[in-house]
Amino acid sequence: MEKKISIIGGDLRIVNLAKMLAEDGFEVITYALEKAEELSNFAKGETLEETILKSEYIVTSIPLSKDGKIVNTPYSDVKLTIPELRNHLQGKKLISGKLDESFRNDSTIECYDILEMEEYAVLNAIATAEGAIQIAMEEYPKTLSGSNILVMGFGRIGKILAKMLQGIGANVYCEARKEPDLAYIKAYGYKPIHLKSLDEHLPKFDIIINNIPVLVLDENRLNQVKKDVLILDLASNPGGVDFEYAKQNNLKTIWALALPGKVAPVSAAQYIRDTIYNILKP
Amino acid sequence: MEKKISIIGGDLRIVNLAKMLAEDGFEVITYALEKAEELSNFAKGETLEETILKSEYIVTSIPLSKDGKIVNTPYSDVKLTIPELRNHLQGKKLISGKLDESFRNDSTIECYDILEMEEYAVLNAIATAEGAIQIAMEEYPKTLSGSNILVMGFGRIGKILAKMLQGIGANVYCEARKEPDLAYIKAYGYKPIHLKSLDEHLPKFDIIINNIPVLVLDENRLNQVKKDVLILDLASNPGGVDFEYAKQNNLKTIWALALPGKVAPVSAAQYIRDTIYNILKP
Amino acid sequence: MEKKISIIGGDLRIVNLAKMLAEDGFEVITYALEKAEELSNFAKGETLEETILKSEYIVTSIPLSKDGKIVNTPYSDVKLTIPELRNHLQGKKLISGKLDESFRNDSTIECYDILEMEEYAVLNAIATAEGAIQIAMEEYPKTLSGSNILVMGFGRIGKILAKMLQGIGANVYCEARKEPDLAYIKAYGYKPIHLKSLDEHLPKFDIIINNIPVLVLDENRLNQVKKDVLILDLASNPGGVDFEYAKQNNLKTIWALALPGKVAPVSAAQYIRDTIYNILKP
Amino acid sequence: MEKKISIIGGDLRIVNLAKMLAEDGFEVITYALEKAEELSNFAKGETLEETILKSEYIVTSIPLSKDGKIVNTPYSDVKLTIPELRNHLQGKKLISGKLDESFRNDSTIECYDILEMEEYAVLNAIATAEGAIQIAMEEYPKTLSGSNILVMGFGRIGKILAKMLQGIGANVYCEARKEPDLAYIKAYGYKPIHLKSLDEHLPKFDIIINNIPVLVLDENRLNQVKKDVLILDLASNPGGVDFEYAKQNNLKTIWALALPGKVAPVSAAQYIRDTIYNILKP
Repeated sequence: MEKKISIIGGDLRIVNLAKMLAEDGFEVITYALEKAEELSNFAKGETLEETILKSEYIVTSIPLSKDGKIVNTPYSDVKLTIPELRNHLQGKKLISGKLDESFRNDSTIECYDILEMEEYAVLNAIATAEGAIQIAMEEYPKTLSGSNILVMGFGRIGKILAKMLQGIGANVYCEARKEPDLAYIKAYGYKPIHLKSLDEHLPKFDIIINNIPVLVLDENRLNQVKKDVLILDLASNPGGVDFEYAKQNNLKTIWALALPGKVAPVSAAQYIRDTIYNILKP
Repeated sequence: MEKKISIIGGDLRIVNLAKMLAEDGFEVITYALEKAEELSNFAKGETLEETILKSEYIVTSIPLSKDGKIVNTPYSDVKLTIPELRNHLQGKKLISGKLDESFRNDSTIECYDILEMEEYAVLNAIATAEGAIQIAMEEYPKTLSGSNILVMGFGRIGKILAKMLQGIGANVYCEARKEPDLAYIKAYGYKPIHLKSLDEHLPKFDIIINNIPVLVLDENRLNQVKKDVLILDLASNPGGVDFEYAKQNNLKTIWALALPGKVAPVSAAQYIRDTIYNILKP
Repeated sequence: MEKKISIIGGDLRIVNLAKMLAEDGFEVITYALEKAEELSNFAKGETLEETILKSEYIVTSIPLSKDGKIVNTPYSDVKLTIPELRNHLQGKKLISGKLDESFRNDSTIECYDILEMEEYAVLNAIATAEGAIQIAMEEYPKTLSGSNILVMGFGRIGKILAKMLQGIGANVYCEARKEPDLAYIKAYGYKPIHLKSLDEHLPKFDIIINNIPVLVLDENRLNQVKKDVLILDLASNPGGVDFEYAKQNNLKTIWALALPGKVAPVSAAQYIRDTIYNILKP
Repeated sequence: MEKKISIIGGDLRIVNLAKMLAEDGFEVITYALEKAEELSNFAKGETLEETILKSEYIVTSIPLSKDGKIVNTPYSDVKLTIPELRNHLQGKKLISGKLDESFRNDSTIECYDILEMEEYAVLNAIATAEGAIQIAMEEYPKTLSGSNILVMGFGRIGKILAKMLQGIGANVYCEARKEPDLAYIKAYGYKPIHLKSLDEHLPKFDIIINNIPVLVLDENRLNQVKKDVLILDLASNPGGVDFEYAKQNNLKTIWALALPGKVAPVSAAQYIRDTIYNILKP
């Protein structure tokens, strides 16, 4: 396994990543991370060019950019545009996140988009599921054990979340639309709820956790939930809940995004590290 | 939901299916099932033509044929060729199994191949997993609880089997090749074994259950297992074990196929019924 | 079931209890609760005597007293001594907590000490276990899933906690001294650790949760744990950890007591209610 | 640990035990086992007296006797009365099963009754629970996954059985009488059924597994179960089912006793061995 790596920009998770790589014996060269105190005695590249030259693999901030123009470098005064970075990466292997088309179209760079790798998504689903349980425990005044909990969406997070909630002793209901998913749900011992018949079941849930990124809990459905229900939305923008209407009706609703970094920051950095190791593996 | 159905040919599961459909209020017309005593007072079509005319949906034997030429009709003296059947099905909806190309190419028939439906496969995976556990309990002289059990292959059966074995108290190891699968395996609390490192782990397993349909347990690997290991192969032809070599070395090996019909015949018929109902649903 | 009850003194849980009993159709007479706004329109007894006379069952604060002399009445200006209360209870049924000898020796009062009832203890163990998991999730920077967690003590809380942690995907180790407990631990799929061999296992734990009310984690043992271990002590005074020494060595230690009321206040009140209902049942 | 042991009489499990002890480095002296071929080259005591003299610990058949008079020696022509054996054991440590009063009253012998040791009972409960699941799988024509299964009695076997059945995906109902047990049952995610309300729930069960050694399923209750229910009785004499009446009504009933030796003979011998090791431990 290649034991040399250059890191350009990035947030706290990348700082933690740099430390973990060093602990594992990697020679780490940093650039645009000069304000990260924890990396003060790490090797620093003088220039972007030099930093890139030193390694076969280049890691950048994940995601690469927040505005689609500038590389994300919160620990640095360096201002680095995406084209500038890309132009120096010819013949290199780039590990980053949310890479735009310009990278995909550039056949001279071997690109790995961590955020699109299935394995990374599964690892994050674990931390997201745990984070959802933590928030539910904090916000709900009864125990999850014995509560009727609906998990909407039986993708990665839904699968792992349902398993954990069952383990805690909740009565777990899983909503899905596809028959094979409903068959799995039964096989795992959860109660299957077809989206078609969701409405009639709504009044019985103590907690609803949504993973579907479309407006499922609309006005009509929110009229049918318990008054003291806790609704947790894990779906990214625009979310699956009519938050406005929920607020007007005093329903307790929490939109929880980017949980892994918040509830398990060390695990979140490890997931990046482990995914990188699998890329490096011969 | 359409409440009328014609059934042409089929084995004991189809006989059971006919009874279940009738119990659920269906009008069932049978053909090429005249020797099934349990269906003696069911409506019978005089001719193939008439039988097909009476219903929108036609169910046949599953699979349709054993030899690729004649429809499977063990409860009948009728001899029906596949082209003969197909020629009468214009404008109809056919529910069968292992349909050949001639059906897929015939745009006048709406075909449903049960054996290719994901949902049916999941349901069968449940019965297969339970069947595997039953056989393991019967053949292994110790309890599964506390045993080291390797599940090879993390597809439908592997996933459900691992979950059940964990529930019984076994130490469950799951073999997989893909990183996302290995991440799931960890998330579910099993011990992940990458195919690459399988060899070093082999000596510790009490029971090995294989679902991979290629020769994984070859001579070399069989040399490394415990002498009193129990090897269960659930993979269809050619299986995943060198049975010849295993036998020469007095390793206990069982090749268990078509488990649902054997260990849970009623469930097996219900799976066909439930899948049909999902096809009929508007 | 008797549907009339007098309540004398008590904290927020008793206030919640009064409301729950009223919701369930009980006639509730309160005394020494005049400052509880939520009970402002509840029937109030004029005097202690009158309040007691009105019902067969009398509920007081739980525990009865904090100092062993005065009944606990945080929502009242009434000052009521234990002998004064006891003298009025002749011929009545008293439901309270931590009743002293004077009650046990008084054969004219039928006493129920909630805090000594096994059923109530089990219900509280559920909320305590969930509370411990919540705190562990909040304080530990990695996911519990995949972590090595030691549960010390296999009593009520230990049993339920181990089950929940396993359900979340942790590697669960349970410490016990008695062989039958160790056999159960194995049967449930946890890893058994005999107290005798605890020391050699200590370095591998990410989180340690103690339920043993004697000093188990002493200087010697604390020297062997991971530097970034999280130690949660659920044991009542004096606890099971040398907190002083742990602090000196920068070990993260949390002494978490009375969790049910903190993490699941509504469940905590329901447990009292359910236990009372079982007392009232014919 | 003492590494010398004398074994007098016993059945196949004792023969297996002798072999296991020898494998673990014990010096084993046998008596009244001369017909056990597998022990043909084990050291044999010439006389009872000599056999006993050679070791501090003496193991006999378990249980000691079938008729209360003669030691159980199926692998021998030796006929040995209980008083004869007892008279030679002065100053020795005896490991046996179902010892009668004469042993308890004899202060010169240190007696260990394996069958009364809690630890051994827990180990056997594991094998019994697995055996019950195996029989249920063999006899029930549907999968256990998804079935409604009632476990009657929440003692050792009931606890472990419920856990395993839940793990397989069954809907597990547990009957108990005591409130603390019912609270545990809820905490573990099973559905609690109080004995009082058993009758109204009976029609929904697909499988009933009884562990209560009194007649619970009497005529009246058997009239309320499903016609195709499977009833498994694990309770020792007189059992918990009116078998006569069940038979008259074509209910499928199986009385399964002594399961560990039947379904997991090697585990059964290991349980005796492990319990003996715990006795020998300093």
